[in-house]
Amino acid sequence: MKPWKRGDRQLHPPTRAWKRRPRIRPGTLPGTLHPAEAPAAPARLSLVRFSRDGVEEREVGIEQATAAATPGTISWINVDGLDATVLARLGDRFGLHPLAVEDAMNVPQRPKAERYEKHYVLILHTLRVVDDALIDEQLSVFFGEGWVVTVQEQLQGDTFGAVRAAIRQGRGRVREAGADYLAYLLLDSVIDAYFPAIEWLSDRMAALEQDAVSAHATTECLVQIQRTRHDLLAMRRAVWPMREEIAVLTRDDSSLVTPETRMFLRDAYDHSVQALDLVESLRETGAAVMEIYLSAQNQRLNEVMKVLTVISTLFIPLTFIASIYGMNFRHMPELTWGYGYLWALGLMTLTAAGLVAFFRRRGWW
Amino acid sequence: MKPWKRGDRQLHPPTRAWKRRPRIRPGTLPGTLHPAEAPAAPARLSLVRFSRDGVEEREVGIEQATAAATPGTISWINVDGLDATVLARLGDRFGLHPLAVEDAMNVPQRPKAERYEKHYVLILHTLRVVDDALIDEQLSVFFGEGWVVTVQEQLQGDTFGAVRAAIRQGRGRVREAGADYLAYLLLDSVIDAYFPAIEWLSDRMAALEQDAVSAHATTECLVQIQRTRHDLLAMRRAVWPMREEIAVLTRDDSSLVTPETRMFLRDAYDHSVQALDLVESLRETGAAVMEIYLSAQNQRLNEVMKVLTVISTLFIPLTFIASIYGMNFRHMPELTWGYGYLWALGLMTLTAAGLVAFFRRRGWW
Amino acid sequence: MKPWKRGDRQLHPPTRAWKRRPRIRPGTLPGTLHPAEAPAAPARLSLVRFSRDGVEEREVGIEQATAAATPGTISWINVDGLDATVLARLGDRFGLHPLAVEDAMNVPQRPKAERYEKHYVLILHTLRVVDDALIDEQLSVFFGEGWVVTVQEQLQGDTFGAVRAAIRQGRGRVREAGADYLAYLLLDSVIDAYFPAIEWLSDRMAALEQDAVSAHATTECLVQIQRTRHDLLAMRRAVWPMREEIAVLTRDDSSLVTPETRMFLRDAYDHSVQALDLVESLRETGAAVMEIYLSAQNQRLNEVMKVLTVISTLFIPLTFIASIYGMNFRHMPELTWGYGYLWALGLMTLTAAGLVAFFRRRGWW
Amino acid sequence: MKPWKRGDRQLHPPTRAWKRRPRIRPGTLPGTLHPAEAPAAPARLSLVRFSRDGVEEREVGIEQATAAATPGTISWINVDGLDATVLARLGDRFGLHPLAVEDAMNVPQRPKAERYEKHYVLILHTLRVVDDALIDEQLSVFFGEGWVVTVQEQLQGDTFGAVRAAIRQGRGRVREAGADYLAYLLLDSVIDAYFPAIEWLSDRMAALEQDAVSAHATTECLVQIQRTRHDLLAMRRAVWPMREEIAVLTRDDSSLVTPETRMFLRDAYDHSVQALDLVESLRETGAAVMEIYLSAQNQRLNEVMKVLTVISTLFIPLTFIASIYGMNFRHMPELTWGYGYLWALGLMTLTAAGLVAFFRRRGWW
Amino acid sequence: MKPWKRGDRQLHPPTRAWKRRPRIRPGTLPGTLHPAEAPAAPARLSLVRFSRDGVEEREVGIEQATAAATPGTISWINVDGLDATVLARLGDRFGLHPLAVEDAMNVPQRPKAERYEKHYVLILHTLRVVDDALIDEQLSVFFGEGWVVTVQEQLQGDTFGAVRAAIRQGRGRVREAGADYLAYLLLDSVIDAYFPAIEWLSDRMAALEQDAVSAHATTECLVQIQRTRHDLLAMRRAVWPMREEIAVLTRDDSSLVTPETRMFLRDAYDHSVQALDLVESLRETGAAVMEIYLSAQNQRLNEVMKVLTVISTLFIPLTFIASIYGMNFRHMPELTWGYGYLWALGLMTLTAAGLVAFFRRRGWW
Repeated sequence: MKPWKRGDRQLHPPTRAWKRRPRIRPGTLPGTLHPAEAPAAPARLSLVRFSRDGVEEREVGIEQATAAATPGTISWINVDGLDATVLARLGDRFGLHPLAVEDAMNVPQRPKAERYEKHYVLILHTLRVVDDALIDEQLSVFFGEGWVVTVQEQLQGDTFGAVRAAIRQGRGRVREAGADYLAYLLLDSVIDAYFPAIEWLSDRMAALEQDAVSAHATTECLVQIQRTRHDLLAMRRAVWPMREEIAVLTRDDSSLVTPETRMFLRDAYDHSVQALDLVESLRETGAAVMEIYLSAQNQRLNEVMKVLTVISTLFIPLTFIASIYGMNFRHMPELTWGYGYLWALGLMTLTAAGLVAFFRRRGWW
Repeated sequence: MKPWKRGDRQLHPPTRAWKRRPRIRPGTLPGTLHPAEAPAAPARLSLVRFSRDGVEEREVGIEQATAAATPGTISWINVDGLDATVLARLGDRFGLHPLAVEDAMNVPQRPKAERYEKHYVLILHTLRVVDDALIDEQLSVFFGEGWVVTVQEQLQGDTFGAVRAAIRQGRGRVREAGADYLAYLLLDSVIDAYFPAIEWLSDRMAALEQDAVSAHATTECLVQIQRTRHDLLAMRRAVWPMREEIAVLTRDDSSLVTPETRMFLRDAYDHSVQALDLVESLRETGAAVMEIYLSAQNQRLNEVMKVLTVISTLFIPLTFIASIYGMNFRHMPELTWGYGYLWALGLMTLTAAGLVAFFRRRGWW
Repeated sequence: MKPWKRGDRQLHPPTRAWKRRPRIRPGTLPGTLHPAEAPAAPARLSLVRFSRDGVEEREVGIEQATAAATPGTISWINVDGLDATVLARLGDRFGLHPLAVEDAMNVPQRPKAERYEKHYVLILHTLRVVDDALIDEQLSVFFGEGWVVTVQEQLQGDTFGAVRAAIRQGRGRVREAGADYLAYLLLDSVIDAYFPAIEWLSDRMAALEQDAVSAHATTECLVQIQRTRHDLLAMRRAVWPMREEIAVLTRDDSSLVTPETRMFLRDAYDHSVQALDLVESLRETGAAVMEIYLSAQNQRLNEVMKVLTVISTLFIPLTFIASIYGMNFRHMPELTWGYGYLWALGLMTLTAAGLVAFFRRRGWW
Repeated sequence: MKPWKRGDRQLHPPTRAWKRRPRIRPGTLPGTLHPAEAPAAPARLSLVRFSRDGVEEREVGIEQATAAATPGTISWINVDGLDATVLARLGDRFGLHPLAVEDAMNVPQRPKAERYEKHYVLILHTLRVVDDALIDEQLSVFFGEGWVVTVQEQLQGDTFGAVRAAIRQGRGRVREAGADYLAYLLLDSVIDAYFPAIEWLSDRMAALEQDAVSAHATTECLVQIQRTRHDLLAMRRAVWPMREEIAVLTRDDSSLVTPETRMFLRDAYDHSVQALDLVESLRETGAAVMEIYLSAQNQRLNEVMKVLTVISTLFIPLTFIASIYGMNFRHMPELTWGYGYLWALGLMTLTAAGLVAFFRRRGWW
Repeated sequence: MKPWKRGDRQLHPPTRAWKRRPRIRPGTLPGTLHPAEAPAAPARLSLVRFSRDGVEEREVGIEQATAAATPGTISWINVDGLDATVLARLGDRFGLHPLAVEDAMNVPQRPKAERYEKHYVLILHTLRVVDDALIDEQLSVFFGEGWVVTVQEQLQGDTFGAVRAAIRQGRGRVREAGADYLAYLLLDSVIDAYFPAIEWLSDRMAALEQDAVSAHATTECLVQIQRTRHDLLAMRRAVWPMREEIAVLTRDDSSLVTPETRMFLRDAYDHSVQALDLVESLRETGAAVMEIYLSAQNQRLNEVMKVLTVISTLFIPLTFIASIYGMNFRHMPELTWGYGYLWALGLMTLTAAGLVAFFRRRGWW
């Protein structure tokens, strides 16, 4: 994590989550894709096909991908990049519902699990920290009997690396269970990925708490606190519906999800609740840091005022005494005393001592 | 968007949503219309009649409108303007319930979906940005077997342009499906129209956040923030019950809504939830901007006080020294020193330097 | 509405709603009336008896009232004033449950609808604006087969005037439907009467928003804001349970309420929700006005401090220069210069100009 | 009520509710009593035995108490003071569940109604005002077929006096109904006793509102406001679960509670809701008074600053003028003018007049 | 409790609860343990085996532990320290579900009760005060037919000492009831242990309230308040789900929990609700203390400003008078008066007296 510099006037780069808006175009018909809008880069497809006996893993074209799924094996097709043409082809091949495909295409959508006749679609959001900013990306997971299709935006990393490795090495029950268990693993890896992001936010919040009480805290610090709180809100918006999503999967009586996988989903549910708990707790911390900032600001004002008051009230009476003996009256006995000057200086010293004693009693000195 | 001018003292035109009140007159009987109150302008009716085979689209009078619906076609009658006579005639023709017609007439009503014996009524609210203000208008959609009647207030634009175009061009399944699908399309276009309004509010909020930390922020900025928050509240009041409304349509077991349309309604439901999420998120941003404003205000006071303190505490001791040597005592040795003046100036310089060092250590200089 | 005078130091008369407390006397047995406490004025009874064919309307004594209800007609007995003797007699005649009668007598009660074996009781609260204060009064509506009994406190106006007129003129379905429809009409007229009160609160709130940003806002303004917010709370306490009350009536399967009346009750339910929405919205406005007031107060402090700072920091250095040349050193070269005075004045002018430039840059001038 | 003295520096005695903690000792087994801890004073038992025909009322020992209940009469045994031995004996006699007896003994418990096989136990809390402080005491009511046992802490007054009197005089249905109706009456008298306490809190809150805007409000006033709010919270904690408690009694299908008593319980439910409404309303008032206090505090700061600003900015320029003419330059033409002194005084008067005009325009004078 | 020192600048050691994060490693497969990570110290196992007739209690190795459970006795195996190998062995022996074992291993988990085919798992959190900080540790309780396995982190004390003693001495029904009752006792002792922690927080809060109004309160005090509030939040996070957890156990119809134990669980449920009530009440107190702190801070600023204002406004006019008579005009009649000096001093005294009277009236002196 790039350390947050104190007194740094330049704005922390706003997180993407802060800025993102759904790409809904008023005037378009629901259930339609817009292939005309060519994606910035062509979508890359990769295929992982496995059974108890072996694994096959390679980059494929759309033709090979649609031809992949064969009985007795589990095929997992991953699409990197939102390409309407590719999605339409996959939709035809696996009988995906047009509305489900539209949700995968028109990012961002709210996390949700929807059951169609022959498949499920899970809309997920990963939250990762890239270059000191929180990146929110949508992942769509379609799964049916014997196949899983995942659609990612242009992710720089690979959220699913650990799952891929587990399949490759045949660890756990992954190669023995069905497509629903694979989908569960993908879901679980998304939830696990929240925890480093939450930790990053937690660190940022702790740094901001330090800043909030420092003498150099500026409005910039306040803006940072609010930004972090906004990130937490974005986090919450991702995790909250995910909890519901998993509950839906767990409750549904579809034959697509086996009872054993349901047991694992209950575990994923607990993890999502735990992530939510941490986020809620951080949100309370955020409110507390805000209050600390505001109060520390007041505290600083108090100290400025105290210094002003001490200096002013010390010298104002002294100056008054001096200005008395600066008057030009012809008959002012003190002026002609031999020790007049000392008398004046003594008077001043006594006054000052009295004031200092007063300040001491008030605890201002 | 007309940019919000900084330091502009003239009040931003208050949005209509801010000012609107229901036109309920105590002392009137429920289920009655008030034809005596002539509408400002006569209602304009337009008819779109279509089947799989063709489309007919024209402006009609009330006579033609009531004669329009024929078996095998879908008739959509749109009424622009609240004219009790016209609504009463349509009510007779299509068997609309008096309470439903009253709701269409006595704007504003809360968004809701109500099922009567032979028809549904949907009360909707569009929120559009016109001349830098949020305009809230009520749309009522009645639909039964083979017909749809929509009632709009005096809208300047046409919320339903895209639907009209889709029918004309025969795009999607619009001409194959029934009146319930058409009603869904109208509902969907109302939801889609929220997103630009939300974006407008989001932009305004971002501009206000900029203003809030600027040195020239006045109470006017605060009033603007509160107004925007109020607009968000109005937005929420429109979207929140709409969500319920769609849920009612989805759950109902009426034969007026086909299972396929229900699937699309589920999608519309998701969109309304997404709009609500964005609104809730903006409301949190609004609260944050408010806090930023208040804290920035404090910050400015802090800086004013710091300058006052620095200048005062710097010069008050110096002036005191000067006033000492302005005293008129006959015996003041320093006054007769050859370098007395330099001594005094030196004393002042030293005092000033000490104070500056003190300010530096406090971080005030 | 008597305009709220700015800077008016006299307290706005507190609303009765603010002050009212239930007259529950610890140590009394439930289900008992206290006829010993003679009402301030004797209760006035009026009877409206009608059928499809005609209407009879007159002031009656308690004897006539209990003799009134005859089969084939609907009798509506209205009691103005809480007189235990009268209520006990009516209770005997119509078989009212003692607890229901006690609720009508011991005002204020919470709005509620309760079903007893042979009758319903509705406890309602009207909120009216009298002499610039919100007056809360309890209305109790008992209704059974063919009869309605209403009990009002000493109302100055008549909440039920419109209903009376509708019966007299035979408008709508009022003379064709049963006692349940009449009870619905009474309920509806109570809900309709909320809207002018809400509008009055809305106007008061708008006036207070103006005051809050004015330069003369005092703590009195704050107290007014809080009082208005309290009135809104009273309003909410009246409307919120009423919503539940209507829902109870709508859901109950009693034969006392016909399906047609249920349809109308659904409409009344919507109106009560709408009233609640407006109240909630005003409550948010109230919180916003509060924040505006507090911030404007801060803003004023800021401006006072700015003026102090500008004047002080402008003259303190100038006075310092003057006091330097007021020192009495024997050897001060400037004092003997021919243009010494001009030099000093020039030095002061330059210093002042520099400070003004500094203030300009800070935006304080 | 001892009036709350303004500016009184001595702390209001904190209410017991504020300080009370449950006497749960980690390491004890559930369902056990601790007779070893002798109560401060021995428990006093009193017996009221009645039927339709007569009443018997006297102080009894534990032997007589356990022998009291005979068929055809209702026995009510009241225990004043928590004495484990007495409770154990009564528990044996009436078949009380050990956990229920433990709840009566280990105060404070949360209000609740629990049904055991042959009896109910109601845990209640009375809130009374004694010596200007809110006293919270636990009452436990056990009732079964033909008997009621009540257990009180060392109450100074008698919460149940009115019930006792009603039995003695044979008022209402008390001597005709069963033990469940007696239990209801006891419950009802506890609820009725909340209202004077709420009124006391309401008066205290009103006095604090007066204090909050007075010129002499100190932090002590703030502490008082918070203490009153805390008392309200204690009140709420007593009333809220009681509502649930009554609902449980009303819903249960036990033969121990007759349908007629259920009807009365519905009434008690309404009263508890009403008490809760009043408490919630006072809590909102408390928050409002808090805001008024804080704002009035700011207001006072504003006024202090205004006076400082007016005096400072008035005299600083005048003193500057005087110090100019106090300079010792040899060549200062004004000094030699015949009317130089008047000129200087005139200049000062003009400057002062200009500043006063400026303050007037700002509304500061 | 180590007393919280006033004005102590050193930070109170942050509680562990504040810092703890789940040890979820992205990229690991669910349901797997990580034996590779050797625990810091080897786990210590202890066995308590008892029946109605006798008790056997000793330290055991993993071999003996898995061999322990025999029909007709209850075996309680306690594991101190998280050792994957040990847990895996116990899992095999008692048929524990891998996910349940993983939850016991990967601390912290959210409190929950989960039912598997042949056993329950309870995840609990104890909160204890060690060295003036709140320590949160996870306890996992597995229980099935005739056996209980508990897993603790490296606890310094023994939460279960009282239960152990009760078994040893054969107190209550512990040796007669089954494993479910033992599990209940363990759960109950965890709940009982919350109350001293709540009391500690309550004392800390009371001390902070004292600090908040003292003259020396610094930002440190504020940070402490927020930290205590955070501890309360941690407490709430532990207790809240525990309530749900017990409700689950009470409702479940598993044969593993007998009806008698359910009755006791209802009691434990009440205690958890009571703990939650206390925590919620302390949270409200925390918010109140926060407000008191902020207001006292303002109050102090007010007093500083008052002193400044009084001194400044007293001496500024006096100094002005002195500076007038310090002017060097040739013709100033007062300067030549015999009593000119006395006149000036008298003028000053009068002015000062007038100002003091003004301050008195304002209540500032």
